[in-house]
Amino acid sequence: MAVERLLPTPEAADLVGLVAEIAREQLAPRASAAEEAGEFPRDAFRLLGETGLLGMPYPERFGGLDQPYEVYLQALEEVAASWMSVGVGVSVHVMTCSVLARHGTPEQIERWLPELIKGDLLGAYALSEASAGSDISAMTTRAKRDNGGYQLDGTKAWISHAGVADYYVTFARTGVDPKRGISCFLVPADAVGLSSGTPERKMGLTASPTAQVYFDAVRVDADRRIGAEGDGMRIALSALDSGRLGIAACATGLARAALDCAVGYAKERVQFGRPIAEFEGLQFLLAEMAAAVDTARATYLHAARKRDAGLDFTRDAAVAKLTATDAAMRVTTDAVQVLGGYGYTRDFPAERYMREAKAPQIFEGTNQIQRLVIARNLLR
Amino acid sequence: MAVERLLPTPEAADLVGLVAEIAREQLAPRASAAEEAGEFPRDAFRLLGETGLLGMPYPERFGGLDQPYEVYLQALEEVAASWMSVGVGVSVHVMTCSVLARHGTPEQIERWLPELIKGDLLGAYALSEASAGSDISAMTTRAKRDNGGYQLDGTKAWISHAGVADYYVTFARTGVDPKRGISCFLVPADAVGLSSGTPERKMGLTASPTAQVYFDAVRVDADRRIGAEGDGMRIALSALDSGRLGIAACATGLARAALDCAVGYAKERVQFGRPIAEFEGLQFLLAEMAAAVDTARATYLHAARKRDAGLDFTRDAAVAKLTATDAAMRVTTDAVQVLGGYGYTRDFPAERYMREAKAPQIFEGTNQIQRLVIARNLLR
Amino acid sequence: MAVERLLPTPEAADLVGLVAEIAREQLAPRASAAEEAGEFPRDAFRLLGETGLLGMPYPERFGGLDQPYEVYLQALEEVAASWMSVGVGVSVHVMTCSVLARHGTPEQIERWLPELIKGDLLGAYALSEASAGSDISAMTTRAKRDNGGYQLDGTKAWISHAGVADYYVTFARTGVDPKRGISCFLVPADAVGLSSGTPERKMGLTASPTAQVYFDAVRVDADRRIGAEGDGMRIALSALDSGRLGIAACATGLARAALDCAVGYAKERVQFGRPIAEFEGLQFLLAEMAAAVDTARATYLHAARKRDAGLDFTRDAAVAKLTATDAAMRVTTDAVQVLGGYGYTRDFPAERYMREAKAPQIFEGTNQIQRLVIARNLLR
Amino acid sequence: MAVERLLPTPEAADLVGLVAEIAREQLAPRASAAEEAGEFPRDAFRLLGETGLLGMPYPERFGGLDQPYEVYLQALEEVAASWMSVGVGVSVHVMTCSVLARHGTPEQIERWLPELIKGDLLGAYALSEASAGSDISAMTTRAKRDNGGYQLDGTKAWISHAGVADYYVTFARTGVDPKRGISCFLVPADAVGLSSGTPERKMGLTASPTAQVYFDAVRVDADRRIGAEGDGMRIALSALDSGRLGIAACATGLARAALDCAVGYAKERVQFGRPIAEFEGLQFLLAEMAAAVDTARATYLHAARKRDAGLDFTRDAAVAKLTATDAAMRVTTDAVQVLGGYGYTRDFPAERYMREAKAPQIFEGTNQIQRLVIARNLLR
Repeated sequence: MAVERLLPTPEAADLVGLVAEIAREQLAPRASAAEEAGEFPRDAFRLLGETGLLGMPYPERFGGLDQPYEVYLQALEEVAASWMSVGVGVSVHVMTCSVLARHGTPEQIERWLPELIKGDLLGAYALSEASAGSDISAMTTRAKRDNGGYQLDGTKAWISHAGVADYYVTFARTGVDPKRGISCFLVPADAVGLSSGTPERKMGLTASPTAQVYFDAVRVDADRRIGAEGDGMRIALSALDSGRLGIAACATGLARAALDCAVGYAKERVQFGRPIAEFEGLQFLLAEMAAAVDTARATYLHAARKRDAGLDFTRDAAVAKLTATDAAMRVTTDAVQVLGGYGYTRDFPAERYMREAKAPQIFEGTNQIQRLVIARNLLR
Repeated sequence: MAVERLLPTPEAADLVGLVAEIAREQLAPRASAAEEAGEFPRDAFRLLGETGLLGMPYPERFGGLDQPYEVYLQALEEVAASWMSVGVGVSVHVMTCSVLARHGTPEQIERWLPELIKGDLLGAYALSEASAGSDISAMTTRAKRDNGGYQLDGTKAWISHAGVADYYVTFARTGVDPKRGISCFLVPADAVGLSSGTPERKMGLTASPTAQVYFDAVRVDADRRIGAEGDGMRIALSALDSGRLGIAACATGLARAALDCAVGYAKERVQFGRPIAEFEGLQFLLAEMAAAVDTARATYLHAARKRDAGLDFTRDAAVAKLTATDAAMRVTTDAVQVLGGYGYTRDFPAERYMREAKAPQIFEGTNQIQRLVIARNLLR
Repeated sequence: MAVERLLPTPEAADLVGLVAEIAREQLAPRASAAEEAGEFPRDAFRLLGETGLLGMPYPERFGGLDQPYEVYLQALEEVAASWMSVGVGVSVHVMTCSVLARHGTPEQIERWLPELIKGDLLGAYALSEASAGSDISAMTTRAKRDNGGYQLDGTKAWISHAGVADYYVTFARTGVDPKRGISCFLVPADAVGLSSGTPERKMGLTASPTAQVYFDAVRVDADRRIGAEGDGMRIALSALDSGRLGIAACATGLARAALDCAVGYAKERVQFGRPIAEFEGLQFLLAEMAAAVDTARATYLHAARKRDAGLDFTRDAAVAKLTATDAAMRVTTDAVQVLGGYGYTRDFPAERYMREAKAPQIFEGTNQIQRLVIARNLLR
Repeated sequence: MAVERLLPTPEAADLVGLVAEIAREQLAPRASAAEEAGEFPRDAFRLLGETGLLGMPYPERFGGLDQPYEVYLQALEEVAASWMSVGVGVSVHVMTCSVLARHGTPEQIERWLPELIKGDLLGAYALSEASAGSDISAMTTRAKRDNGGYQLDGTKAWISHAGVADYYVTFARTGVDPKRGISCFLVPADAVGLSSGTPERKMGLTASPTAQVYFDAVRVDADRRIGAEGDGMRIALSALDSGRLGIAACATGLARAALDCAVGYAKERVQFGRPIAEFEGLQFLLAEMAAAVDTARATYLHAARKRDAGLDFTRDAAVAKLTATDAAMRVTTDAVQVLGGYGYTRDFPAERYMREAKAPQIFEGTNQIQRLVIARNLLR
């Protein structure tokens, strides 16, 4: 069911409409098979790059569309509603773009951003490590000054797009200070010494590889450092705020897909002589699912509008991520319930949605971390 | 704690800021005592009328401020955060104004709206009856054609401002058709035969009287009929959509007041040698409360913006009412918990907030009715 | 609606049936008026003492009935279902009895227990202080050795039955060690220097006074010390385990009363031409309320049976207290919802039940403390 | 972590202990691999048959152990905690046994029950059809009188053990009356014309096949009809009550396995320099999971004890099924959360538990149907 959206301009409405159409017609039909086969849809990113989605929030002079974040996120929601792995992949990719766009030098931006925005190059975000998940300051990957450049050594974990990305926005330790000793690098995937491990065998989002990335004496030129030495933590955290909005939008899309699936089924499935949609008990459940979807969207949009207005939105992003991903978990679980036995089989996408919904509660800061972010804001 | 708001213009920000200041300084300090004594703060409506709050959504030519609904609702939230009974009273009053402004003739509007907007006259909304609560079509109050006017007979129930209002926007049956036989009248409170019963002994919102209103051969001139004969149901339902947004904003304000109370206490109260705000278990609870408040606000604002943009917002209003009032119930209950034994006493406002929070889940359509409204939209 | 109970013997069934009948016929009809007037029903304890309820878990040689805890708790549930303040009062009183019965010397037991069991003397439990709520070790009330007895000085807070009790089981500091420096005393209410403050103005349970108790150079004979010096903390904690079961049973009774009220109303109230009990949406809500009540009962009974079998039941008691009191809060809030506007008035007991339900989530260890107790057990 | 159980006799404790040990040592280690490979563990039923589990609730004269249901269910919980598919399979098998034991003639019981109890023959329960799930009366499979026996035609759907069972307890229509026209048959799997379809591709419980079963002119002797003609509906419904207790016990076991997995991980995983089990926010989550497990167990046990005492337990069984399966869904989802990224991979069983937990909310009467059963009891 099409969402009646609130968009600032007719141009924005056209853009979101276009992305929605492409997602519905060219991505959605391939999703189930590719997820089952574990095939990464690399081409989807080029296709979406052509629509302008990947550059939506960036200035036109770099090939972007200069759209507010509230527009970009609604387009992203549409992608995720059609194919969650691609939605999440776009969110990750755009997060790497934003690191470059916000913290890169003019030269760096000009050199890489256009290609990134087009989807010619696909990005990955190499921040977390096996023992440094929620706790970034425990990071051990090192970047040692070496011949006017750096040498990177260490292992990153839980990296989306590992093995399929063209570059890794990589955080590594240039100093001993837990927080101020971290720097950020844009490392090409074909750098000597960089490799990736066997993909994790995940519960869902199986079309998108997640794996460890190994840095074994990887040589990185100094002009590939983004921001100053020691700025890494600040860069990582600020990118996370926007990244969380991306995840919130994706989770909203996923929840909506599940709701649509449930509503469609409920209108068709007959029990006791009537479509089950006519039973008030089920209507109440569907209404609660719809309320959760609408609430999730309103919440990420409110945060996005604050971002667009230049206001602080750290708490808002955490609230949006927490609310939308919890909503997606609940709504997808209930969607399986609405479909009953059918919902429990791979013949309908509901069970896949439910498996996919668990991930966003965990990545880009677990929902426990979001609570801490909110509490810190509340108690300051 | 001041909310960092998203407002469309500096003028709007000033307006909301002004209302917030007046509410905080002139209403909040009186609330607890008046609620305990059951004293209706009639003057508060004149005071707020002077700020322009009551006319915020109406055109300037009638003395209004011509502000979008998203602005009015944020100002209303501020009032409710300071004193829920007044917030709800404003919402009811503005709902009666909107019936006049949207369905009255130019003569009727010119005659009454300015006084209503100033707060000189206080309105009540006489729709429900003892056996016609959720089911409007069961209404039995009659309006019989009589000498070029109407004679009204019947009893209305659960009427906010009964006995203190200056006029009653009254719905009565002019025909037998359950839905198309209802008409709407603006009845002055001093009409002969109109009287009100003993106020209900309510759990909360005790400063604002709710009572039965009796119509005993009340004579109403024909020019006090708002809209055409038979239009009453349509008028009532459309006013409810906006009314629900008002309640959602009030519930958000109430939840925020409870959150602020809990946060303030948690920073001061020491147990096990530390302020309890430093315990992670409590931080998580406070974070969930904050997320509920923020989500409620984002949701009513999204609906308001759709209303302001001229889009259909029936489902959005139902979602906002359901979400915000459930949030208020949960957050106020948790606020009492944060304060522990102190929260259970009248020495802190938390227990009052909790008692007040139950009402909005019930009035202007119970939350069960909201689910039906949402489901109907979803399944059409 | 009578509960079909599982009781070990016909004698136990008779006992519970008798208590239930007396509660239903002699207590329930007085509850609403007494709660509104704030009148403590001192006589109810003598009446229940005559049924044997107060001595149910104690040996026959002291006038007890030697019944398992699973029987006592089901009788207590019946009392609370008729009048929560009395149920909670019984639970508190029996907790003071259990301190005596389990830790007193044979002489002490023989001297006081029979009177306590009969309800001739009413007990209070003077443990918490304004700054020592969850954190018992912060207690400052002192008991100084004095002339072969003790002199008690300090102030207790949140004491149920303050001002109406005949004796106070009082915990006071005999040494500096935070945990091992506390001792327990049975202090008669008429001791010189003992007085109580103005009752707290509570949200509910208004028939039962809760107040501060002042000890101003109160002289207590050495033979009124229960247990050894320094044993106080251990005595207090072990009594709490059983006390929590009492609260769980009371909360279950309260939730059941609310459910019965809602079911009764739903069968009578007609909307849209049918009793609202026939609407599936409401049926689901009532079913969830019933499931919560049944689950709460099963959970406290399981804990009681472990206690009766001599097994460790600390975690079980915490789970029962947490589960049953949260259930009561939810079920009573939903009961008001089922009754709609009527539920929000004092004409039905639903709103009173809801106000009463908040207290048990707070006292005898807040539900946050229960979570810590459970976690400690889980992680040891 | 071993559960401290409440069992009526030392013999019962030994039996449950034995089953637990075998499950832990011989089933648990094989579960993950078999689930991934989709290999049905046929031998597990013989193994468990040897322990007496399958005959636990049946009289000794048929080879049973004559144990109360509260004992059988606790043993079943232990099996499900080690391997959910086997637990559910046992529950289904025992439900077929109970149809025979309660409704069979002495000859039928003597002829088949001993083999069933030993696990030599594995049963399936062929009740539901594609268009007759919750609505049994819509059943279309027919059993036509034929030569002193019956001929069965039709298709059953969602049949656990389809293709691996040795016999199918089959319900088919012998008359036109929706409810009184159904009869029950014990059909051997090798009957001519009986076949099963491709197993459903399920989200979880993948080691246990669920498929359609086709009856194509299947000839069944008259002495294989269980109960009188037309008794089928009554037999099916009464078996469901006990079957629901089995599912509740299995769901409790599954939830416990997830809790144990989460607790084990939380004690080991270090973040911010400490095991995450030391963070209060996580402790609260673990405590809530534990409370849900304990509550689920207490609830099914209470229902079982009522069954053992010969009391009506229809509502209790519905409450237990609803409570325990909802608890399992919540606890397993939270367990994945506790493990974070690791939880989302197949390297830990948490994600499998979560996939398995969805099924019990659906089968043996969806949790929506359970609410109707409870409401019907409540409103009668």
